[in-house]
Amino acid sequence: MSVSDLEGYHGETHRRLKAANAKVGNIIKITTKTGEVYEGALFPMSEYGDPSHIVLKLKNGYNVGIHYEKTEKIQVVGIGQKPHFTRPPPPPRQSGLPGVSIISTGGTIASRVDYRTGAVQPALTAEDLASVVPELASIAEVEADILFSEFSENVTPSQWKTLTEEVARKIAAGASGVVISQGTDTMHYTAAALSFALQNPPVPILFVGAQRSSDRPSSDAASNLTGAVALAAKADLAGVGLAMHEDLSDRYIVAHRGTRVRKCHTSRRDAFKSINASPLARYDLQTRQIEYFEDHPRRNTNQILTLKPEFDHHAYLIKFYPGLNPEILDAAVRAGARGIILEGTGLGHVSKSCYDSITRAVKQNVPVFMTSQTIWGRVDMNVYVTGRDLLNMGVVPLEDMIPETAFVKLAWVLGQTKSLDRVREMMLNQIAGEITQITSIMEEA
Amino acid sequence: MSVSDLEGYHGETHRRLKAANAKVGNIIKITTKTGEVYEGALFPMSEYGDPSHIVLKLKNGYNVGIHYEKTEKIQVVGIGQKPHFTRPPPPPRQSGLPGVSIISTGGTIASRVDYRTGAVQPALTAEDLASVVPELASIAEVEADILFSEFSENVTPSQWKTLTEEVARKIAAGASGVVISQGTDTMHYTAAALSFALQNPPVPILFVGAQRSSDRPSSDAASNLTGAVALAAKADLAGVGLAMHEDLSDRYIVAHRGTRVRKCHTSRRDAFKSINASPLARYDLQTRQIEYFEDHPRRNTNQILTLKPEFDHHAYLIKFYPGLNPEILDAAVRAGARGIILEGTGLGHVSKSCYDSITRAVKQNVPVFMTSQTIWGRVDMNVYVTGRDLLNMGVVPLEDMIPETAFVKLAWVLGQTKSLDRVREMMLNQIAGEITQITSIMEEA
Repeated sequence: MSVSDLEGYHGETHRRLKAANAKVGNIIKITTKTGEVYEGALFPMSEYGDPSHIVLKLKNGYNVGIHYEKTEKIQVVGIGQKPHFTRPPPPPRQSGLPGVSIISTGGTIASRVDYRTGAVQPALTAEDLASVVPELASIAEVEADILFSEFSENVTPSQWKTLTEEVARKIAAGASGVVISQGTDTMHYTAAALSFALQNPPVPILFVGAQRSSDRPSSDAASNLTGAVALAAKADLAGVGLAMHEDLSDRYIVAHRGTRVRKCHTSRRDAFKSINASPLARYDLQTRQIEYFEDHPRRNTNQILTLKPEFDHHAYLIKFYPGLNPEILDAAVRAGARGIILEGTGLGHVSKSCYDSITRAVKQNVPVFMTSQTIWGRVDMNVYVTGRDLLNMGVVPLEDMIPETAFVKLAWVLGQTKSLDRVREMMLNQIAGEITQITSIMEEA
Repeated sequence: MSVSDLEGYHGETHRRLKAANAKVGNIIKITTKTGEVYEGALFPMSEYGDPSHIVLKLKNGYNVGIHYEKTEKIQVVGIGQKPHFTRPPPPPRQSGLPGVSIISTGGTIASRVDYRTGAVQPALTAEDLASVVPELASIAEVEADILFSEFSENVTPSQWKTLTEEVARKIAAGASGVVISQGTDTMHYTAAALSFALQNPPVPILFVGAQRSSDRPSSDAASNLTGAVALAAKADLAGVGLAMHEDLSDRYIVAHRGTRVRKCHTSRRDAFKSINASPLARYDLQTRQIEYFEDHPRRNTNQILTLKPEFDHHAYLIKFYPGLNPEILDAAVRAGARGIILEGTGLGHVSKSCYDSITRAVKQNVPVFMTSQTIWGRVDMNVYVTGRDLLNMGVVPLEDMIPETAFVKLAWVLGQTKSLDRVREMMLNQIAGEITQITSIMEEA
């Protein structure tokens, strides 16, 4: 029995399957301790799978994962076939196309699927990608690397730095554009981080992900990747953005500004929305045309990229709610906070029960900034007494910056300077399109 | 000099104005210590104003507030008129109209404005309301009370209880509907609270507020109040909702379900949106017709209202973000948390760096629940390893409940039972339309 016979299984699941003489692709019958019976083709365990489970593809097409502790008996009832990943030859490379670097950081943006077992194999190399998404070959000369492989919820500010430096290397090496694949959960936080850390970028740097994994027929992975690569290769854009489905139509991939975008749905393919701003551009997958929205930074290869990749771990984001125990604010200060973003209510308010803790924080040189949990709109702390009280305590309103971007910016600003005055000043200075200047706002309805 | 000559001023501002022999309505010239000069009509200080400021209405129509510490000299340069609030006689009461109780808890839903000085006087009694919003007299027999007067960001779970009991009294006294005016910042939290605390309500109970204060020509106060009173009086609805502008058109007032609504803009009149659900009904201000959306609980005067007004102060809501210091979770437990709502990413994830703190919380009998900061959509913790890890630690996914409602529900559930099992069970039981049962969900795109 070769290693690949039980591909991906380790420890106890591997031991039990081996004892049953099971091989990936065999038809297996598992009887559980509670008497349930499952019959289906044995899946290989993916690197993202839970190693304590045995995964079967049932006849009805669904997959089931059964914890090894629940298995009473495992029998091979049919000799199946190992999943077979066909790789059609990639289309021939075309010369003269713009070079696009794809950096993979986790999440499976493209994969090959064995449709008999449903098994999935991530496609991460340039050759894999070219084979799985053949459109790419007619759009750009694609180069692909795996920088790290992490669920996006585990990505930390130190990895923002690693990624910033890698993108800079790709740009220095002459890429016409960079595409970064990441799991979608915190993709907007990472996009905001790189927006601040990569200054004066000459070319577009676009994050891309998939809301439905690439092994599902409804997956948005290939179309998002195609759109992101096309925009990175050809759009007259510079700076950091995030390219995903514009709506449910499968026709447009829209690039949002990295500091203005937010994941607004757990599962829809059009989950990402530009907040308080219009997107940058969109790519029509049918006509291959690019359309631009309002102002957008332009591609300019004479621009010299400046790297400011340091982030500080002592930025905190605290969401207010009725009855919030102000002790949580004190706890953040005690834990070493060098700055706090409040996610207040409405125009930028928190309860007066928080006043003492806020005053203490400010007195201990921990600057406190205000954003709104309404997400849309602009804070205005001059309208009500509460806002004016907070201003008097030294709370700094962050205009129409969204809370997530404000948090990322604070982590970045704290990485750039130790001066408190400079921190307050930088938070209000426009760095990467994260603030709409008040003078340009029309009266809202 | 009578008290009303310096209406609303107290302490130092009152002393200085009195010394200058100034009266509300006089034209006052204030020279500041830094040499600026302001000239305008002296405003009365509103109960919501900042008592350390003197407020003038300048000739250009704008108001300015000047802190007393900044004033160098105060002179009366013209004898103006005190603001004069005309009260047109309210329209005659019509007999046979449904009775609606309006309970005011803060925020100025209606006011009289003296357009010369811009001074505002809140209209809170039934007579005032009838005079300021004369449409009401043809819709319902309105009775109005002030329960408390608090900015909504200061409203606490104990006030949720007070309000619940007051609403029950109004229903017991035979109201055909109840309208509660509140500041909009946390109106959706209060609406969720009453949704859980008032069970089997026979009539509609509708929160209402104004995004633009009633002294501004663009105010939505009167139209929101008219719509809320009409729906409370006549709609075939029962239960707690929130009635505000549907869009920017000034035509429709829409009633959202109290557990499904969220303030999604700092300033727009259509800031409140139903999340993961359709609204209950809408009122057409032009035709006076009521239109219903899908299922909605029906008015039923045979229903016996049950009061469950207890809320526990030991519920916590914690929003996750990349690099969150898990110490904050431990701090919540140390501060006495009896339950924690996590606002995770995507389908319901947090970083593995939080695992130890979550495990500790659960072991210390602090149940941990998962919602998503995407706001829209449903958590599903079976898709990825992170979700399954968290499930294994005992984290309970809260389906498509929005984080704010989940927090309020937790505070309420903790007020109902000391049993941990019962807390977990009640959090997942449908109480007031806060969860969409999975079987009724269509596959989303």
